[in-house]
Parts: sequence; C-alpha cells; structure tokens
Amino acid sequence: MVSRERKPPDDAAVGGMPSPSAGLPPLDEEQVEVLRRVGREWGEAAGDPAAWRRALPVEPNLGGFPAPAEIRPAAYGRHVRVSSLGDASDPRQPDAIEWDEEQGAGGTRRARAAHLLRRTVLGMPLRSSAIARERLRKRVALPVLSADALSSVAYGPEALLAVLVLAGTAGLAYAAPLAALIVVLMVFVGLSYRQTIRAYPHGGGSYLVASANLGRTPGLLAAAGLMTDYVLTVSVSIAAGVAAIGPVLPLAARSPVPLGVVVILLLLAGNLRGVRQAGRLFAVPTYAFVLAVALLIGVGLYQAAGNGFTAEAPAPSHATEAVTLYLVLRAFASGSTAMTGIEAISNAVPIFRPTEWRNARTTLTCMILMLITLFAGIMTLVHLTGVTPNHQETLLSQLAHHVFGSGPWYVFVQLATAAVLLLAANTAYNDFPRVLFLLARDWYAPRVFLRLGDRLAFSHGIILLTGAALLLFVAFGGRTSALIPLYAVGVFLAFTLSQAGMVVHWHRTRDPHRRRSLLLNATGCVLAGVVFVAAVVTKFAAGAWVAILAIGGFLLLTTRIRRHYDRVGEALRLHPGALELPATACSVPAASGPAPEAEGGGRQADDRGDTDEAEREEAPEQIHHLSIVPVAVLDLAGMRALAYAAALRQPVLALHVSPSDEEADRFRDNWHQWGDHLPLEVVVTPYRAIIAPMIHYIEALHRQRPDLTMTVILPEIVPRRRRYRLLHSRVAGRLRRSLRALPKVVVTTVPFHV
Amino acid sequence: MVSRERKPPDDAAVGGMPSPSAGLPPLDEEQVEVLRRVGREWGEAAGDPAAWRRALPVEPNLGGFPAPAEIRPAAYGRHVRVSSLGDASDPRQPDAIEWDEEQGAGGTRRARAAHLLRRTVLGMPLRSSAIARERLRKRVALPVLSADALSSVAYGPEALLAVLVLAGTAGLAYAAPLAALIVVLMVFVGLSYRQTIRAYPHGGGSYLVASANLGRTPGLLAAAGLMTDYVLTVSVSIAAGVAAIGPVLPLAARSPVPLGVVVILLLLAGNLRGVRQAGRLFAVPTYAFVLAVALLIGVGLYQAAGNGFTAEAPAPSHATEAVTLYLVLRAFASGSTAMTGIEAISNAVPIFRPTEWRNARTTLTCMILMLITLFAGIMTLVHLTGVTPNHQETLLSQLAHHVFGSGPWYVFVQLATAAVLLLAANTAYNDFPRVLFLLARDWYAPRVFLRLGDRLAFSHGIILLTGAALLLFVAFGGRTSALIPLYAVGVFLAFTLSQAGMVVHWHRTRDPHRRRSLLLNATGCVLAGVVFVAAVVTKFAAGAWVAILAIGGFLLLTTRIRRHYDRVGEALRLHPGALELPATACSVPAASGPAPEAEGGGRQADDRGDTDEAEREEAPEQIHHLSIVPVAVLDLAGMRALAYAAALRQPVLALHVSPSDEEADRFRDNWHQWGDHLPLEVVVTPYRAIIAPMIHYIEALHRQRPDLTMTVILPEIVPRRRRYRLLHSRVAGRLRRSLRALPKVVVTTVPFHV
Repeated sequence: MVSRERKPPDDAAVGGMPSPSAGLPPLDEEQVEVLRRVGREWGEAAGDPAAWRRALPVEPNLGGFPAPAEIRPAAYGRHVRVSSLGDASDPRQPDAIEWDEEQGAGGTRRARAAHLLRRTVLGMPLRSSAIARERLRKRVALPVLSADALSSVAYGPEALLAVLVLAGTAGLAYAAPLAALIVVLMVFVGLSYRQTIRAYPHGGGSYLVASANLGRTPGLLAAAGLMTDYVLTVSVSIAAGVAAIGPVLPLAARSPVPLGVVVILLLLAGNLRGVRQAGRLFAVPTYAFVLAVALLIGVGLYQAAGNGFTAEAPAPSHATEAVTLYLVLRAFASGSTAMTGIEAISNAVPIFRPTEWRNARTTLTCMILMLITLFAGIMTLVHLTGVTPNHQETLLSQLAHHVFGSGPWYVFVQLATAAVLLLAANTAYNDFPRVLFLLARDWYAPRVFLRLGDRLAFSHGIILLTGAALLLFVAFGGRTSALIPLYAVGVFLAFTLSQAGMVVHWHRTRDPHRRRSLLLNATGCVLAGVVFVAAVVTKFAAGAWVAILAIGGFLLLTTRIRRHYDRVGEALRLHPGALELPATACSVPAASGPAPEAEGGGRQADDRGDTDEAEREEAPEQIHHLSIVPVAVLDLAGMRALAYAAALRQPVLALHVSPSDEEADRFRDNWHQWGDHLPLEVVVTPYRAIIAPMIHYIEALHRQRPDLTMTVILPEIVPRRRRYRLLHSRVAGRLRRSLRALPKVVVTTVPFHV
Repeated sequence: MVSRERKPPDDAAVGGMPSPSAGLPPLDEEQVEVLRRVGREWGEAAGDPAAWRRALPVEPNLGGFPAPAEIRPAAYGRHVRVSSLGDASDPRQPDAIEWDEEQGAGGTRRARAAHLLRRTVLGMPLRSSAIARERLRKRVALPVLSADALSSVAYGPEALLAVLVLAGTAGLAYAAPLAALIVVLMVFVGLSYRQTIRAYPHGGGSYLVASANLGRTPGLLAAAGLMTDYVLTVSVSIAAGVAAIGPVLPLAARSPVPLGVVVILLLLAGNLRGVRQAGRLFAVPTYAFVLAVALLIGVGLYQAAGNGFTAEAPAPSHATEAVTLYLVLRAFASGSTAMTGIEAISNAVPIFRPTEWRNARTTLTCMILMLITLFAGIMTLVHLTGVTPNHQETLLSQLAHHVFGSGPWYVFVQLATAAVLLLAANTAYNDFPRVLFLLARDWYAPRVFLRLGDRLAFSHGIILLTGAALLLFVAFGGRTSALIPLYAVGVFLAFTLSQAGMVVHWHRTRDPHRRRSLLLNATGCVLAGVVFVAAVVTKFAAGAWVAILAIGGFLLLTTRIRRHYDRVGEALRLHPGALELPATACSVPAASGPAPEAEGGGRQADDRGDTDEAEREEAPEQIHHLSIVPVAVLDLAGMRALAYAAALRQPVLALHVSPSDEEADRFRDNWHQWGDHLPLEVVVTPYRAIIAPMIHYIEALHRQRPDLTMTVILPEIVPRRRRYRLLHSRVAGRLRRSLRALPKVVVTTVPFHV
C-alpha cells in the first residue's frame, strides 16, 4: 500500500487553482515533530548555531547591498541581476530578497539571441501575483466556456449521418429518432452537471469528483478519459476547422495537413504566451457562430415553409450495409460527439461573479438550450434539404450552399465555423495542462507539470498536448472522419465516472435536495454509461481501440509514477537517527593532520564566540571524510584542485591513472620533486582505460572503509567558448556520471576557466 | 608568438610510433624547477607531509587487499575489478596497482548489452605492451605497402583517357606521350623517395619531413594534403572496387551506394578491431591483382602479336572539345592519380627487417617497377584494343572482356581488382589516424586523437575518417569519375612539400651523397609541383575546389586549435605565487566556528604526529571557504547535503529559493522548528525562475568577497533506473552547468540514491 499518503495542499479546496508553490507543499504536523527531533540530534552533534552564523564570512542579506544601479548586469554568463526590493530593515520580510528579471544585456551572443527569441514569442514574464482571478459576467462567460460544446454541432450531426448513410435511405430514416435521443441525453447530462455545480462550487472537474468520491483508480480513469479527449478535441477541431475554410481558402483544401500543423503551432505559441487572459475577445467567434447557424436554420426553415415543409428526398445512395442494431448504435455513438465540451462550465465555476454557482447554473442552462436548438435545427434542415455527408464537402457547408448559395453569407457561415472550432481547440489548451497539474500535485505525473511558465501558463503541459495532438493529426492525415471514431470514448468515460461520483456524493451528504439530485445524476450516469459502452463496442475496430489503449496506458503510467514517487518519498523521509551528522570534533586531519591547533586570524576572528557545546565523540553517526583528487598532469588546474582539497583540512589522497609504467615512474618523480606534500597513489592501466580503473579503485576503498564519505575532487578545464570544449578531455564529465552510481561518493568539480 | 613551445616527447625520433603515454609528455627542466619552488611554497603553507599521510583513513595501496577471488564483480555500475599484480612489497613498483579488464558480469542490463556488443565487434582489449613492432620481410612488406599504389592503375589510366576522349580521336593521340610522361614522373618520384628513406630511417612521412625542414605552415599543409588524400583514397577505392565487381555481382551494379556504405562500415569495424595486425593475409590480394593484370597484359599482347600488333581503331566518338593545352594538362593531372599511394613505403621504414632503410629502398624499387609495368602495359593494351572509357563499364573490365571474354579469367581479374582496392582503402585507415596522432601530439588536433583504443587502434581517427569518407562517397553518388577531380591535389601537394623539405634537409647536412640526393629530390619536387599546379588549374571547377577548400579549412582549424592550446597551456602553467594555498590555520569555522579545539578520536588518532610547521598567518594567498547549500525541501536528501557541508567545518550558508512569500514564511518556520542550526537565506522569486536568482545571488556574494572560494553543495536525487530521471527535478544538473561559468565557484553534488 501507499506508505506515505501525502496530503494535498490547503488550496486544493479551491478546485485546483494553480499556485506557484504547489511543488513545495507544507509539512504536516508529524513531519514537523520529526523535524524537531532531528534538529535536537543535530544540535547535540554539531554545536552552537550562533557560532555558525558568526563564522559566515559574508553578509547573506543582500537587501542593502549594493544599490541596483551599481550592479553590473550579468557579469558571468546569461543571468540577470538581483534587485533588492525594500531595504534590509523592512520588518515584513526580514531577510528575503526579490529577484527581478531584466533585459539581459550581458552573456554570450547565443544566450542573448535565445533570450530575444523567447521574449519575442512569449513576451515579458509575469509575476506570480498576476495569476488570473478575474471574474466574468455571464454574457462573457457563456461564449468563452461554450465554444467547445457549441462547435461540436459542426461535426456531430455529420458523424451521425455518415454512419446511417451506409445503410442507404433505410438507414437515414433513423436520423430523426437518434437525434431526439441525443437531445434527451443532452438534457439529462445538462441537468446532472447542474447538480455538480451546486455540489462543487469551487469547480468540479471529473478527476476531482471521481477521485474524491470513488477513489484512486476511477479518478485516474476519468483523468485519462478527459486527457485523451482533450488531445482529440484539438485534433478534431483543427481538422474540422481546416475543412470548414476549405471552400473559402483553396490552400486549405489542397494541403490541409501542413495548414493544420501551422495552426496547432500557433495555438502552442499563443498559449505559451498565455492567451487565456484574452477571455473577452473570445466571445466574438462564438456569438458569430451561433448567429450564423441560427440564421442558416431560420432562412432554411423559411425557404422550406415556402414549399410547405416537404422534405426533399436525399440523393439516392446505394446501401453498403444493412440496418442493424449495431449500425444504429454506432451512429448514435458517433452523433454523441456533438455533446463533447459540455463539462467545461462545471470545471470553471470560480471564474463567475458571485454567487458563482448560481450564475454558472444559469449559464449552463443557456448553453444547453443553445446547443439543443442548434443541433435540432441542423438535423431538421438536413431532413428538409435531403443533403447527405460526402467526402468533398462538410455537411454544414452543403447546408449553407443550399440555403445561401455561394454569396457572402455562405462565407460568413464557414468562417464563423472555423473560428469557433479554433476556439474549441484552445479550450483544450486551457484544461489539459490543468488536469495534468492536478495529477502532478497528487504525484501521479512528473512534478515538472506543476511549474508555471514565464507567462503563468503551464508550459510543459501545453507542449505535451501540442505534441500529442500533432502526432494524432498527422497520423490520421487531418481527416475529421478518421478521428471521430477515437473521440467520445474518453469523454463519455469521464462523464460516467463523474456522474457516478456525484451519486456517491449525494448518498453521503445531508443536502435537502439530495434525493432529486441523486436521481438526476444517476440518470445522467446511466445514460452516459450507455453511450460509453455503445461507443466502445461499435467503434472499437474503427479506431476506439486507440483511445482505449491510450487510457489503459495512461492508467498504468500514472500508477507507476505514483509508486515511484511513493518509494522515493519514503526514502527521503526524515526520521531520527537517519542522518550521519557533522561532528564538532572529527577524527580526521583538521585535527590529526597538519594543523591541529586551531588558531589564526581572518576577518571574522574578532567576533568569534566561545563554543560551549559538549563534544560527543562517541556518536556513532558521524561523517568521516576522505577527499580523492584524480590528477593527470601537475599543472595549475590540478594544483588548484589539490589546494582546494587540502584547504578543506580533511584527509586527501591524490590519484594518478597512468597508461604505462614509464609514465607512472615519471609522475612519481615529479610528485617527489614537488615535495610529496600529499599522499599519492598511482594506478597503472595496461588497457589505457581511465574511468573504469578509477571507479574501481574508489569502489575498493569504499569496501575497505564503508563508513567513509569520499569526495572525489575533479579539476575540470572550462573554456569560455562552447566550441572549444571538444578540445579538452571529457574525463571529468564522464567520471562524474559514472561516480554517481557509487554509494557515499560525493563529486566536486573545481572549474578552471581559460 | 607561441609562448610555450612544447617539446615533442623523446620517442618523436622514432618517427611517430604510437605510445599510450603520448598524452602525458614529460616535464622539461624549467618546469621541474618551477614545480620544486611551488612545492616549497606549499610546504610552508600546508604543513608536514607526513601528517597528511598519517591522517589517511584508508590503506591506499590495494596491492595486498583483498584477494582477487574475493572481490565482487562490478558491484556498482558497469565497471570491473582491479586486480593487483604482484604484492605490495614488490620493490619495482612500490605502490602501483594494475587494472585488469574482465567480462563484467554485474551492472545494468543496458550496460551489459553495450559491453557484449563492444566485445563482439571489437574483441577483447589488448594490453599496451602489445603495440605491434613486428618486422616484415620484403616479400610480405611489398604487397602490404604497395596495395594503394598498385591499385591506382585500376582507375588512373581510365581517368587519363576519360579526359582525352572528350576531344575524340585527336585527343586520344595524346594518350601515349602522356603515359610516357607519367612513367617518367613515377621514376623520379620513386628516386626521390629513395633519398627520403635513407635520410629518415625511422619513417619520414610528409608531415614530419616538411615540418622539420620547412617549418610549421608547410608541415600543416602537407598534413592537410595527406589527410584529404586519405579520405579520397577510401572513397575512390571503394567506388572503383564496387564498380569492378559490378559486372560480376548484379547487386553492386544496381545499388552501388548502399553496398559501398556497407563496405566502408565493415572497414570501420575491422579497423577498430585492429586488422592491421593481419599484415601477412593482406599479401594475397595484391599478388593476385598483380598476377591478374600481368596475365591480362601478357595474353593481350600475345593476341595482338597474332595480328601483327596492328592497333584497332577506337570506337568513333565525336569530339565535344578541341585539343587544347588545357585539356592535355587536365588529362595529365587526372592520369597522375595512378601514382597515389607511392609514399607508403617511406612512411613505414621501421617495419622492415634490418637493415631497414636498405630493405625499404629495395622494396620501393620493386614497387615502382611493378607499377610502371602495370601502368605501361595497360596503356599499351588500350592502344592496341582501341577501347575507350564509357559510363557502363570500367576500362579494366572492357580490356578483360576483350582479352578473356566472359569466362573465369575475367571474373578473376575483376575480383582481384576489387580486393586490392579494398586493401588500398584499408591503407588509408592505417595512415590517416597516424597523421592525426602526430598532429595531436604537436597540439594541432584535439588531444583525443592521441588515445589508443581497446585494440590499440586510434579509434577516434578511424571514426573521423569513416565519417568523412562516407560523406564524400554518398555526396558524389559513389561514382569514381566524379571523385577523381578532387583527388591528386592533396597528394601532390604533400609530395611537393615533402620533396622540398628533403632539398632543405640535404642542403643542411654533410652527407657524402648529398649533392646527388639534393638533385634527385629537387627534380622530384619540381615535377610533383608541376602536377600539383596542373591539377589545381585544370580541375578547379570540376571539383578540385572542394579539396582546396578542405586543405584551407584544415590549415585554419589546426592553427586555431594550436593557438587555443597554447593559450590554455599558458594559463595552466605553474609558476610560484600562482596558487592559492591551503593554510594550516584558516580563519574560518573549523576554527572560529563550532569546534575550535581540535581533538577527538578516529582510528588514526594513535599515530598522529606533532605539527612542527611554522604557521604563516600573513600569507596572502590562503584559501577561504564558504559552502552554499541550496535546499528546496527539508527532506533526507537536503539534510544529508547540509550535514555534509557542516562536516567540512567551513562556514555554511543554506539558500532557499521560494516561489511565493507564503512559502518563504513557511520554510523559515520549518527551519526554525528544526533549530536554526545553520544560517539560512531565503530568496523570493516572483517569476518562478530558480536557476537565475540562485546564480545571481551567488554572483553577488562573490562581488562582496572576491577572495572567497565558494562551494555550492547540491543535493541530487539519483534514481537507480534511467527512465525515472524524468520524474525528478533537473535543477541540480542545470545549476551545475550554469555555475560552471562563475569564477571561484566549486560545485559539489551529493547524490541521494533511491
């Protein structure tokens, strides 16, 4: 079992608002208690804290040091200056220094170019305090949050009919009843989410609701469903959007894949910049789309009224399949993609103005009504005009052609459709990294997804989503019809689990309306479950297996990640006695070596305190040091490493790996001429390998004295310019990587700049 | 000017025999003297050497420790055991340990697989003492060393005729005089090299001769010429070899490029294994080739005698160019490629049996005679049979068809040709890395080319040659005719410079035969120079510009490398007072900190000596330490780093970079609960960056106290398996790379294994 159940941080109650310190959760009380005990042990071993502070040769609080204008910008490397905000005496922040980014004027040319590129693409970094908490009024929130759901009517009806048309005219007869069924489904899922909004006023994503009420695995399954769904939302929306502007922009029709890739990359750049701040602007395309489709439906119905609402017969198509329950179910599952995106509002309750949950519910109701109107209207129009899906033109485009001809209104419909689909893809960019953030906070995903980028966006999650969506988009040739079978599986899995979670939730609470809510959520759960099962069964071979595989793989991966983190957490856990402690009186050379008598000046000598600590020689857990300095040549770099080692006043052993006996003798001679100041060991390596014998020698020393902490002090030549690195031995780097695996070996690199 | 003219090691006189310790040249007397003085300074500052040795907590001489059979194989990582040869009391090697490679049974699965692959491809490593010094008798040395030169007749005559045929029958009339001219050239170049052999009995490569007699730049130019030539030898020989087996093996005719790539890769593998040891085996193809061509010429002449030596008229070809001096010169330059490889024997004098130079000269004469015979014979046969070069079939194959029909003799000629060309390519593998070795020894090439691989081959040079040859081969589509224009430029540049060097050599010496030798070498120099100029002028546009560019680039690169090494050498040079020295009594915390009274046990306490050194408090060059420990979380990894730092008993400052004020307060609270044992500084980073503020903080401390040596002690979590690395913060690695640029900052990594 999980040995260390980490508590989520306090602000988890806020439904997963991102926080810059999410990666550093506070300690719980037990841990604090352990910390105290470890501290007591430390104090007994290591002596007076005040002496340590007095010994400090620098003034660590740079609050008053030097005036910002005096600081040279980025003297070494590509980094910029610390500016001290407020003076050191500011009581609010006794010794905190703020760090401020500036246009790095210094650094290498390469670094400056990278900096410039970064700033051009991303803009200036934003302070953490700018994390968006702006509230939206309903008439802005509605278009922003419903773009995903409403845009689904651009491909949902087509997906439904594309399956039915396989059975010819007999199949198309099922269109009306299936559409009605989907509308019913929309109503119930909408009602279910109204309950969720009330129960989770801080935002109730499927992952949160499912994991809180059903437990770990269902939560992860819901997250897996959501995340595959978000990836698909991007791919499908971009594919459908590119298809929508095809008739208007010939380029899009000729090469949809490159165009789609460019659009996805623009989304990436925009989101890294943090476009989600531009909420208000996003209202335009959604309203335009709603207007366009409403117009289309209105004018279409008016025209149909002209000829007495007699449905035109669909173009005769010969049936390739019989009308079976399987076919009908498959059409139903495909058509249900019109519902994707319906969960967006319940995730985002906190962005509404107060009373948040009430406003959110109203908005949700509005959205559902609009969705139903558009969906039903389009299905009616399809019935009346008799258009059927074909590979050359989208259904919506056919309808628009039919109603408006090819004039500006037609172009308006197509452009509005493309715009809203782009917006829908952007919604996924908003939500995918947030789910990943929640998973990472619960140690189910790499911790790097907790990080907020320069522009307060979850850059890593955004990049991951882009990569996955690009892969899918390109692999499926940017065709909506090929991607649709993968869709809906994940989203209905998430719907089902989230509604099931709500059922458990209502079962547990004592809410006055709990019975009604429970009933609604249960109905939603059952309906979503049916769609999920139908989707899996009917679309499995057509591509749903990819989604299932992705969900399964995701579940496996997250559990393994969590297991690893648990194991690491256990290993990293503080407990009394776990630590080898520094001792005030070590057994080794600072004492037994060259200069036992502690004395001598230095600028701190005047305010040095007396050490009143009892010495604990018998403490079993003291650290014993040995420094090993591999020296190839007796040059300044090697000497400096030796001097560094000797100055630590711990025992030092110099190690020379020699390729031949003659060289070994020569080196020993030189060492003797130098004065034999430090113990030297020469290892002759008849096979010319350097790393391996060194590693093995150190390993052998470790076996001789397993209690020693060995510090390998490597001289390393660091040329100013990168391109000169090739000219120097890479032994230091390789040795460091190899030594990393050895127990109780610490690696120190003493750079020598040339 | 060069500030530090490094002396080549003593064995340079041996003509560049590879030595495993070439990378570690001995110090000259001045350096030894400096070393002594630096040692005296050190002794005054750092105290009694004997105390340092007594303080050592381990027995460094593992000679007697533990018995080889007891050592666990490769307990940590992919490394194998040290076996001690001889016991510790062996007076010859007072404290040297030999390292012995074994089949590493331990280590990770990946490491074992890599090890297995390496051993399968390369075989077991060879001891340095196995460096081949076997001597060859003349009849073995001849085929081994002349494969390159003799194989040139497979493409030289064709290259000559291919130019002349452009001018139709009128052009072909120049074939005979040009061939005669080339034969004269061969005679003179051969005579010139006979002089070189006598003057440089230890091997006189063009680089050595030119740089010894003419100076730095001519030497480098000669090396550049040789090296581009070696790369071309591989490409041209393989291209010609693949073309030769084309008629026999249809695969080779259909896809010459993939086949050629495979052959080059096989050469790579073979040479990494060290095939050059297999000298004797190499005699077979050369003799077979000589036999085959001799037979061809003999039978051809016999057949021609049958019809009274009347030359058949060449197939009528319409002239595309007029016969100009330019065209004739170009044909001459192209035909001179038949001479490439002639220098091989003079490079390899030491491998002959004594008296080496005498045997080498005899062998050279033999080779030249054979070369002239084959070349003249083929040209005669071409004249008699009237074949002309075409794109479908090589000239040699046409001749063989003409003389032998398509029977087994034909196949024999083609296979022998292919085999000898392969061998010629292999010669380049032998010589290219050796030139690179010489350049690296003189600091003109990266030092890595000094290293002898597992099998005593210069692995890095072999890999570089393979890469360059592959690039050329693929870029030119594996066509001999496309590569030929690049050829000859480099080799004749090297010839010219080496002969010029010899002229200077004879001018300087007092050899009894000097006048005759000087005259011969001067003639050779002039003739080679003429060919060089002709090649550059006539073939410039056709491809020679590539070779010229390569030679120029090479010259530039080597000089810059040398300049960099000189600068580094100057910076690394020891001189008195250059070093900050360890002081027996530092001003800082081991003294002023927690535990000033040196006392305490440890296993070495009993034999601790008195320190009789005078303390030098006023020494200006003492090292003052400050350890900075970045701590993100107070877990075991962070604590261990803190304990490690504290145990060094130098001043310690803990540094926490906090993403928010709340987290900063929380961390400070925790630190206080732990007991405030060490000074802590918290830096708040409102932009969430971690590396940059840390770097900058450290930089600011450096400005505060530029004399301090700051050690940044980084805790780093090291998961056992590579794939888990992604799950952990990479801050430690990135910080290490960023800190590398800072002055007086030492980076220590305290690994925490999980």
